Amino acid sequence: MMSVIRVGEEYWLRPIGFVEKAGEVSEICIFSEYHQGLTAVEDYDKLMILFWLHLRDNPKDRSKLMTGRRRLEKEGYRGVFATHSPYRPNPIGVTVVELVRVENGRLYVKGFDAYQGTPIIDIKSG
Amino acid sequence: MMSVIRVGEEYWLRPIGFVEKAGEVSEICIFSEYHQGLTAVEDYDKLMILFWLHLRDNPKDRSKLMTGRRRLEKEGYRGVFATHSPYRPNPIGVTVVELVRVENGRLYVKGFDAYQGTPIIDIKSG
Repeated sequence: MMSVIRVGEEYWLRPIGFVEKAGEVSEICIFSEYHQGLTAVEDYDKLMILFWLHLRDNPKDRSKLMTGRRRLEKEGYRGVFATHSPYRPNPIGVTVVELVRVENGRLYVKGFDAYQGTPIIDIKSG
Repeated sequence: MMSVIRVGEEYWLRPIGFVEKAGEVSEICIFSEYHQGLTAVEDYDKLMILFWLHLRDNPKDRSKLMTGRRRLEKEGYRGVFATHSPYRPNPIGVTVVELVRVENGRLYVKGFDAYQGTPIIDIKSG
């Protein structure tokens, strides 16, 4: 059986917003173009956030397949797919946060450890 | 405060493998270029798989911000971010599967509902 998926193919993503403020309660600003997509999101207590690990979006970090020395000493020799390391070929972070409130296209969430300026690429609920 | 993240920015992804066989136990083939990244992945019972919803990777489906009529009748008017719908601006699926075994860069997993030919973009463990 032939596969039509090839190793060098590329898919593109665009940010739907970004982390405007990081803290105990983080503020996520969603671009106005995407506000309609937030309809009824306030019905949920928990949201899954997908974000772009922009500080690791460079050729060197994206080519790492093994974890670094610090992790090696603690956990032994591991591939990046056996971790949640931010160094990975496709630097996407996934986290489940607690939704505090939604206001004018801004989400206020608890339990989000992404830095200020981090691009948001998706939100899933339910 | 100015943000440096803009609505039209683009980030790229490349597949690390694809679903070779879909079923009760699905087979995921990882490209040989990425095999090293699987080191120690067999230590885990559960894996989080990120995959590209390739059947929805087209301008029409990526521009939908509200759910369709069938869902409307069942759940009311909802934005895509208030769902797990495959129609979304960045068509990435996330699922947690049970790892059955790893063999020659192939992962055999239970509980993965992606179609044959679906590109895999990331695996996270632990």
